[in-house]
Amino acid sequence: MKNALTYELLKKDKYSAARRGVMHTPHGDVQTPVFMPVGTQATVKAMKPEDVAKLGHEGVDIILSNTYHLYLRPGHELVKKAGGLHKFMNWNKAILTDSGGFQVFSLGDLRKITEEGVTFRSYIDGSKHMFTPESSIEVQNALGADIIMAFDECAPPDADYKYIKASQARTTRWLARCKEVHKRTEAQALFGIMQGGFFKDLREESGKAITDMDLPGYAIGGISVGEPKEKYVGVLDYAVDMLPADKPRYVMGIGTPDYILEAVEHGVDMFDCVEPTRLARHGMAMTSRGRLNINNAQYFDDFTPLDSECDCYCCRNYSRAYVRHLFRQKSPEILGSMLLAEHNLYFLVRLAENIRKSIEEDRFLEFKKEFLEKYGCKD
Amino acid sequence: MKNALTYELLKKDKYSAARRGVMHTPHGDVQTPVFMPVGTQATVKAMKPEDVAKLGHEGVDIILSNTYHLYLRPGHELVKKAGGLHKFMNWNKAILTDSGGFQVFSLGDLRKITEEGVTFRSYIDGSKHMFTPESSIEVQNALGADIIMAFDECAPPDADYKYIKASQARTTRWLARCKEVHKRTEAQALFGIMQGGFFKDLREESGKAITDMDLPGYAIGGISVGEPKEKYVGVLDYAVDMLPADKPRYVMGIGTPDYILEAVEHGVDMFDCVEPTRLARHGMAMTSRGRLNINNAQYFDDFTPLDSECDCYCCRNYSRAYVRHLFRQKSPEILGSMLLAEHNLYFLVRLAENIRKSIEEDRFLEFKKEFLEKYGCKD
Repeated sequence: MKNALTYELLKKDKYSAARRGVMHTPHGDVQTPVFMPVGTQATVKAMKPEDVAKLGHEGVDIILSNTYHLYLRPGHELVKKAGGLHKFMNWNKAILTDSGGFQVFSLGDLRKITEEGVTFRSYIDGSKHMFTPESSIEVQNALGADIIMAFDECAPPDADYKYIKASQARTTRWLARCKEVHKRTEAQALFGIMQGGFFKDLREESGKAITDMDLPGYAIGGISVGEPKEKYVGVLDYAVDMLPADKPRYVMGIGTPDYILEAVEHGVDMFDCVEPTRLARHGMAMTSRGRLNINNAQYFDDFTPLDSECDCYCCRNYSRAYVRHLFRQKSPEILGSMLLAEHNLYFLVRLAENIRKSIEEDRFLEFKKEFLEKYGCKD
Repeated sequence: MKNALTYELLKKDKYSAARRGVMHTPHGDVQTPVFMPVGTQATVKAMKPEDVAKLGHEGVDIILSNTYHLYLRPGHELVKKAGGLHKFMNWNKAILTDSGGFQVFSLGDLRKITEEGVTFRSYIDGSKHMFTPESSIEVQNALGADIIMAFDECAPPDADYKYIKASQARTTRWLARCKEVHKRTEAQALFGIMQGGFFKDLREESGKAITDMDLPGYAIGGISVGEPKEKYVGVLDYAVDMLPADKPRYVMGIGTPDYILEAVEHGVDMFDCVEPTRLARHGMAMTSRGRLNINNAQYFDDFTPLDSECDCYCCRNYSRAYVRHLFRQKSPEILGSMLLAEHNLYFLVRLAENIRKSIEEDRFLEFKKEFLEKYGCKD
């Protein structure tokens, strides 16, 4: 049986583990390393999908959407009835859905974990729900994304060894259940998620177990939860190699340039983050020289673009003074969020494009150094 | 000296006073009758200017912006420094600015009228300001719109004969002062505004006085303030003919199809209204069969477009169920406002296009009848 997704390695960097590849999906090829814009509620916030598809110089191949949110509203049955997520939201390229695990576990006291799954209360009406490996796959099957994620526990970063060990083992058992019920393997590729916190032996245990299941792709979970960069890099140092080289590797929830560049250097292929569009709504621009808060008074009469090195729609057509004007209203003008969302996503899509090019030319490490020097790691 | 604007009559309807024309402006031709989208704060809410320019089948030739708002924030001096309003907001076609009069008079107790002008307090910081005919023109000169409006008093609709008579006479004296200080007549066309409330003799007085000043265009003020349609049509019945036939005629603040169609039938050429974008932000769609509130539960699983007769971007690509999904979030998704703003403006731009075509083919009255029968005058 043909898998929904295959990974093709195009080029390895000579001086690091960085790699240039392409994922073949039912909705087109995805060039890697790739940054995936997030469309939590079946919309990349403040953008038309056609404009998302045109971001950067090469366009966006894949976006992410959220199982948890779509399950609660409008419900996966409605999306299925609409003809699936692609049709519902007018996006004909690849989509990845997360499992809902991360959101459910973020609910803290509002959820309860058992071997069967997680019960939680809806933030909308307080009603009681349960996510299990089986139901997460059922929902993701209804949504119909090209890549779907296993239902895992993203354990708290401060949990102790004993907790992480048990949690990691349960996540592995859950993965087996996900694989068991996922029948649409030709249409949707199920990715496994490695857990194990910051303990090398647990990562090893997890990595071995999930690799044995021979899935079309793997993610490294639980390291993008606000821990210091040393700990993040520390896990990358050993965890990436525990995953098969012939499958795509994904670090979830990473949106800052230095974290992305570190992961790429270690051989990771996929990234996503809500931050670019969230920052946009608060008037924060990501630029080649770090973040810029457009609300600051100094930009009142600044007629230069947000980023003089950027050629996005916003930077080609509008000044900082104009974008600031849009934000400095009693009700900020919607166009302000639109322009900054497009600019910030363009910034990360261009970063991924430049990363790919630098790998092709065996100068990834130089590129990384130059980029971060200018950027100042301000993110 | 060449005027910034000339009006060319292309065709008169055989069976009504409706007329098809074109205004030649420094930023291109404007086909009339025309509906002008409003960009109060130098942005047509929730739309990119390029998307505004492409609305309908023939595109949008002209938009409106607000002197009062831009004066207070970011200030006309900043817009001038930015290279004028066209450049500041990235719009290369024609712009009309109002005089600020309507907004200032809407402040009620917060403003005071003298022969010199109107003092008012800023809604932003409570600071005291004065608008005079001279300062309104100065601000509008700095903004640099193709069409600028005289500073007039839009008297309360319930004011008595004595008040309206005095107010109308003052508005005429103010117009003379506007004309006196407006030197950029080759770049910006100053329109006069007829006042006189619902009194025929006062409209006559006003019409004669302002026509004598030989301005490039004229508006009929003070009839779009929520009065019943009979009173509105009653004024149109005599007021339009009091204005010169070789100049464009403008009724300000009209955005409902029946009011627009009545005005066109009487020989009016220009309209504007904030309503299409305001309705959009509340989930209200204007359709060929009247208004539709997308928040209603009945649209939850309705996979048809907003308006089956509409070929706008939203109706071509999205279902009612999807648009409703965007609005039914804790924080409504920005794309919802974007899609409905585009749809509603498209609806009125198409209405104006169909009006123009019907006049060319001498079937305006039929078109009006058919349109309103289907629409149900529900607006």
